[in-house]
Amino acid sequence: MKWIEGGVCAPKGFEAAGMHCGIRPNRKKNDLALIVSKTPCTAAGMFTKNIVKAAPVQIDQKAIQYPTAHAILANSGIANACAPHDMENGLLMQKAAADALGIACDEVLIGSTGVIGQDLPGDKIAAAIPELLAKLTSDASGSDEAASAIMTTDTVKKEFALEFEVGGKTVHIGGISKGSGMIHPNMGTMLCYLTTDCAISKDMLKKALKDACDASFHRISVDGDTSTNDTLLILANGEAGNPCIQEENDAYDAFYCALKAITQALAKKMARDGEGAKHLITCKVSSCASEAKAEVLGKSVIGSSLTKAAIFGEDANWGRVLCALGYSGEVFDPEKVDIAFASTAGTIAVCAGGKGLAFDEELAKQVLHEDEVIIDIAMNEGEAEAVCWGCDLTYDYVKINGDYRT
Amino acid sequence: MKWIEGGVCAPKGFEAAGMHCGIRPNRKKNDLALIVSKTPCTAAGMFTKNIVKAAPVQIDQKAIQYPTAHAILANSGIANACAPHDMENGLLMQKAAADALGIACDEVLIGSTGVIGQDLPGDKIAAAIPELLAKLTSDASGSDEAASAIMTTDTVKKEFALEFEVGGKTVHIGGISKGSGMIHPNMGTMLCYLTTDCAISKDMLKKALKDACDASFHRISVDGDTSTNDTLLILANGEAGNPCIQEENDAYDAFYCALKAITQALAKKMARDGEGAKHLITCKVSSCASEAKAEVLGKSVIGSSLTKAAIFGEDANWGRVLCALGYSGEVFDPEKVDIAFASTAGTIAVCAGGKGLAFDEELAKQVLHEDEVIIDIAMNEGEAEAVCWGCDLTYDYVKINGDYRT
Repeated sequence: MKWIEGGVCAPKGFEAAGMHCGIRPNRKKNDLALIVSKTPCTAAGMFTKNIVKAAPVQIDQKAIQYPTAHAILANSGIANACAPHDMENGLLMQKAAADALGIACDEVLIGSTGVIGQDLPGDKIAAAIPELLAKLTSDASGSDEAASAIMTTDTVKKEFALEFEVGGKTVHIGGISKGSGMIHPNMGTMLCYLTTDCAISKDMLKKALKDACDASFHRISVDGDTSTNDTLLILANGEAGNPCIQEENDAYDAFYCALKAITQALAKKMARDGEGAKHLITCKVSSCASEAKAEVLGKSVIGSSLTKAAIFGEDANWGRVLCALGYSGEVFDPEKVDIAFASTAGTIAVCAGGKGLAFDEELAKQVLHEDEVIIDIAMNEGEAEAVCWGCDLTYDYVKINGDYRT
Repeated sequence: MKWIEGGVCAPKGFEAAGMHCGIRPNRKKNDLALIVSKTPCTAAGMFTKNIVKAAPVQIDQKAIQYPTAHAILANSGIANACAPHDMENGLLMQKAAADALGIACDEVLIGSTGVIGQDLPGDKIAAAIPELLAKLTSDASGSDEAASAIMTTDTVKKEFALEFEVGGKTVHIGGISKGSGMIHPNMGTMLCYLTTDCAISKDMLKKALKDACDASFHRISVDGDTSTNDTLLILANGEAGNPCIQEENDAYDAFYCALKAITQALAKKMARDGEGAKHLITCKVSSCASEAKAEVLGKSVIGSSLTKAAIFGEDANWGRVLCALGYSGEVFDPEKVDIAFASTAGTIAVCAGGKGLAFDEELAKQVLHEDEVIIDIAMNEGEAEAVCWGCDLTYDYVKINGDYRT
């Protein structure tokens, strides 16, 4: 398994493009993305658990039931949620792409991200489709343009691709995602589009996507909010020519392993690019009674505003970590818990058996001054572990979200 | 029922004092508070649900079982939690006060608030008790001094008192509290000490305290963190001479009504003084199927970082309000929801039937520019309602918590 260039264009038979169609007239950045497979795909998706679901989520939840999928059309700038003509504009967007590509409407999956409550300019999007089609390319640049077109407050593009072997054939998975604020591990928590040339049945694809999501996007938190638009999609066109994966065999394991790696890479990049973030926080909870429990404990720590603010201040205030474990809802013996902070600058043990240790404050400052900080928690009660990712809470988070609409 | 001066000293037979004993040597503010009843009291308490419980919480959970209580001794600066000698110092503190007052150890309830993981200077506290006793007074100044002694990042004292009638007698309730960060409606969420001269049985006092807490401290949020030290105590000495309240009769109702009013006043003041807060947010959820559901929905809104940041930015980004309702865990029809923002500057409807309304952005800015902002949500599905309180998320919250220990 090796990391390669090309994002969603790395798998055979996929093309992508991005452009500026003017959804937010005063912001001259790409705002419309298209990903197309030359041949029909098996598809799987996961969607927000928010009761308030944006029109594109409702449309995709129907379309994903269709036997095949062919394309994904997504915009940034406006979320197409809770707006007077949201469903109408979503369907218009879907139909415009289907007509231009000569495929069924239900073969087009759509996505939107941005401000809630405003009407999407469906006409602008429909009018832009011919130009977008003309820009489609299987070069890495196509994935790049698409990745930038779904960014909102993101400061970096999130794009990865992997090459690996399945049944003697070379197979690829590529992915792009956007996500920076409103990130929380209740669901897919962002837009993420994955492509693969692996041949795999719909059932196996669904299972792999769900499990990989549980181990990646469900383990990150920026601010505890879950959006109305969260969507995670994968299109598999089988162009790699491997024997179609129909059951949980070695081939499935190879595919799942690669899918998990790419979703974790995208998830970590989203946490690192959390709105205003200065630090990526990796919280590792080990020697725990079960993985599920370790995950709940880890999520409580990365979700704690006070812990996040302490990391921003590079302050080794481990009491807040223990406190966040304590209100996680899980039962444990506080007098068994050890806590350390670590980074490339070193490791510093701050709490053993639930009690504070004397430690070198200067070294602690250095450890926490690094961009990537690890909170290493040993529960000393079992063998299981889980890793979760988050970011610090900074002035810039408040600034970015204090005036998002203007 | 009328609001009066005097805080915890307003009820007959109570004295209080506060002083600087030097728990944080470089911070010259009151750090030790004492509240004493001349006669033995019936007492009730509520404590943090955090698995990690500070030594004073563990000590109080035992002491509150004792038939009578006489005094409360509390410090700020160090939380006396997860420190090498936490239990030892807590017991020393309790015994020093009991010996000086000539009462049983279990008649002294204690409390601590501040940094987790550091040892409390138990000797300094014990040495300060004689001076603290000499300062005890039933004047309002005693309550003032005690209220300031439990403040940490609080910027204002929280102190109220009420006078009302029970069984033909004039009765009083007084209270002081501290709380500004690490506030969330999972429990008592702070230190709060209440006194009353009402005669009331222990069972009735417990019931009234729990219900009042549910309608006040359990309905505020600053940052979603629950501390290790949360404690809510009430001492009732019966000095008002009313027939002892033994059941849920009119006298109980009068007492409960006053207790609820004072706990809500303290809770609102804590939310208003949330760390770094510029706005008090009152979220009213009405025409809901049940009060419990309205409460869950309201708490989700006041707990949303994105909504809090939008209010800081005075940005009428109602989509975040609808979104927070949607991930609350409650099921409802988004297409029935109406949302308005209100303040002394006016009321502005922003969403009807789950869809955005065109509204005057200039008026919206004016409405949200006021210190106290109301988010008024109609679910249009029933008759019940609940009100919750929170505050905005500001640069100063991050600043205060980025370097709390130093």
